Amino acid sequence: MEKWIESDGALTRDFSFEDFAGAVSFVIKVALLAEKNNHHPDILIHGYRHVLLKLSTHDAGKITEKDYNLAGQVDKL
Amino acid sequence: MEKWIESDGALTRDFSFEDFAGAVSFVIKVALLAEKNNHHPDILIHGYRHVLLKLSTHDAGKITEKDYNLAGQVDKL
Amino acid sequence: MEKWIESDGALTRDFSFEDFAGAVSFVIKVALLAEKNNHHPDILIHGYRHVLLKLSTHDAGKITEKDYNLAGQVDKL
Amino acid sequence: MEKWIESDGALTRDFSFEDFAGAVSFVIKVALLAEKNNHHPDILIHGYRHVLLKLSTHDAGKITEKDYNLAGQVDKL
Repeated sequence: MEKWIESDGALTRDFSFEDFAGAVSFVIKVALLAEKNNHHPDILIHGYRHVLLKLSTHDAGKITEKDYNLAGQVDKL
Repeated sequence: MEKWIESDGALTRDFSFEDFAGAVSFVIKVALLAEKNNHHPDILIHGYRHVLLKLSTHDAGKITEKDYNLAGQVDKL
Repeated sequence: MEKWIESDGALTRDFSFEDFAGAVSFVIKVALLAEKNNHHPDILIHGYRHVLLKLSTHDAGKITEKDYNLAGQVDKL
Repeated sequence: MEKWIESDGALTRDFSFEDFAGAVSFVIKVALLAEKNNHHPDILIHGYRHVLLKLSTHDAGKITEKDYNLAGQVDKL
C-alpha cells in the first residue's frame, strides 16, 4: 500500500483491497469521515478493488491543514 | 462475537464493531452479498456499533439452504 | 409512508422503497446525517424494501431535541 | 445531465446530485448493480456532488454488450 503523495496541489493515495466489496466499504468509511469533517475528497474506485483518494482544499487552491487532518483520520481506518 | 442462533424459523447473529462506521461498512458488505445471492436478510444497526442479521426464507416460511449458504458467506467477510 | 410515532421513549418511522437498493441507499443517507449530527438512530432494513428508524437519546432515556432535529433532517431527504 | 459517451474503449457518463450524500447513495446503487451483474465499472466521486462512471470490458479491451447492458440498468436508477 502506497503512502500519501503531494502533487499538483493535492494529497493523493491509492489503496488496495481484497475485492470490490472491500473497496466499496472503505469508500463508505471515508464518506462518513468526510461528512463528519465537512471536507470532501475526490474518491475513485478503479480496477475492481482499488480506491484512489485525492484531497485538496478548493477554496485555498492548495493542500491545507484540513487535508492533512483528514488524511491522518483515513490512515487510522 | 456470538454465533448463529436458530429460532422462530430464522437464523440470527449479532455482530459488534469498533464504531458506527464499522457497523455501516459491514452492512454494505452484507448488502452486496445479498444482491449477488438474490437473498436479502433483515439487517438491524443498533446501539451505535452493533449489527443484527436475521436470515429466513419467506417463501418457505423457514430456514433453508439459501440461509445457511448466505450465513457462511457472511462469516467469511 | 407512515409518520413519526412517539412510543416507549423513542421516535419511530417506517419508510418503504421500490426495492432493496432503494432501502440501502436511504440507509447510507441516514448514516451520513447521523455522523454529521453525532446522533445515531437504530436502523432496521426489513422485508427487502422497508427501513424502520428508531430515534432516542440514550443518555437522557427519552426523546430529546436531538431526536426531533434528526427526524426533521431525515424528512428532507 | 450528460449522456453516455464512447471514447477510448470505454462508455462514460457524468452524473450530478444535490450534495455529497446524493452522490454517495447513487454510488451504492451502482455498486449493488455491479455485484448483481458481476461487472464492475470505475466510479469517481468528484467535486462534492458529481459521479463519473466509466464502463469497459477489460478482458476484451473494448466496450461490449455487458457495458451497454449495465449502462441501461444505471439509466433506470
